[in-house]
Amino acid sequence: MARWDPGAADRLRQAALDLFVERGFENVTATEIAERAGLARRTFFRYFADKREVLFAGSEQLPPTLAEIVRDVPAGLAPIDVVLRSLSAMGAELTKYAHRARERRAVIAASPELRERDRTKAAALTDALTGALHDRGVAEPEAQLLAQVGGAIFTVAFGRWIEQGGDQTFPEVFDAAVGEVRAALI
Amino acid sequence: MARWDPGAADRLRQAALDLFVERGFENVTATEIAERAGLARRTFFRYFADKREVLFAGSEQLPPTLAEIVRDVPAGLAPIDVVLRSLSAMGAELTKYAHRARERRAVIAASPELRERDRTKAAALTDALTGALHDRGVAEPEAQLLAQVGGAIFTVAFGRWIEQGGDQTFPEVFDAAVGEVRAALI
Repeated sequence: MARWDPGAADRLRQAALDLFVERGFENVTATEIAERAGLARRTFFRYFADKREVLFAGSEQLPPTLAEIVRDVPAGLAPIDVVLRSLSAMGAELTKYAHRARERRAVIAASPELRERDRTKAAALTDALTGALHDRGVAEPEAQLLAQVGGAIFTVAFGRWIEQGGDQTFPEVFDAAVGEVRAALI
Repeated sequence: MARWDPGAADRLRQAALDLFVERGFENVTATEIAERAGLARRTFFRYFADKREVLFAGSEQLPPTLAEIVRDVPAGLAPIDVVLRSLSAMGAELTKYAHRARERRAVIAASPELRERDRTKAAALTDALTGALHDRGVAEPEAQLLAQVGGAIFTVAFGRWIEQGGDQTFPEVFDAAVGEVRAALI
């Protein structure tokens, strides 16, 4: 058993993204990712279940994190404000760790399998948001509608934040998108 | 080669839904569906690629249908009104053919694989809507945002239409959901 290498997971992530960008996700193996990172194949599987997981590792923490953020929003706000404030705060956290987000996004966009995984992840977030609103006393039909609409705005805003390349913070991009929807609907 | 049986596809659909409800999607084979419908196994595969397709057959026509509806909306309307009017019209069409929609929905909800397929279908609709708006001269960022938000409202409204069991038309349910989002955002 090799000794614990604290940088291994990150080196694997970088190597994987390099290779996915160079050759396309389908044409890269876990062995090749390990080689590029200067690690053994078995080390790869100590950190990730498969090559797909390199792109999504950690995302299983997002739904409970969002639920916690919703729980911590002060009482007395309208449900829509709970939704928007929570999604803005989650996005602000998320974008702190979004290294090479544009390349990651391009890799996902090019693969039906990865797009599917990405949508599953987004659906888990919407479900967590619906449940957390419910726990705050928002009735199910309203909770679901606001969570879906908020999730839709979040998805678009996250894409825009990546595209604009760091000039604006996520909350700024998100607020602008909410403003557009509001202006359209009024 | 058996002679052409115009009722076969529908009998297979009914038999499949019966069996999925009774035993769960995972525990039913194509052979069993064919048997229940009183048809040969090879007849099943003349109509459907696999048992999943029994639930989603025809859905590949929805994105081009939606794009056509968007094209036919009169000029001069605001982009959001194009989106809402088109989705309402598509839903009205769709609900005409939504036999046993509540059972179908329950079967899909119980299977991660089917939920994934359902989300892929919804994403194809949103993409078609974005593209059709773009063709009407709506700029990409706005088209994407309105299509995503409209799609979110559509998804929730479709679920509500199924739940309420036919008392209201789809456009009525959809308009009510749009009204809720509007009221929340103002």
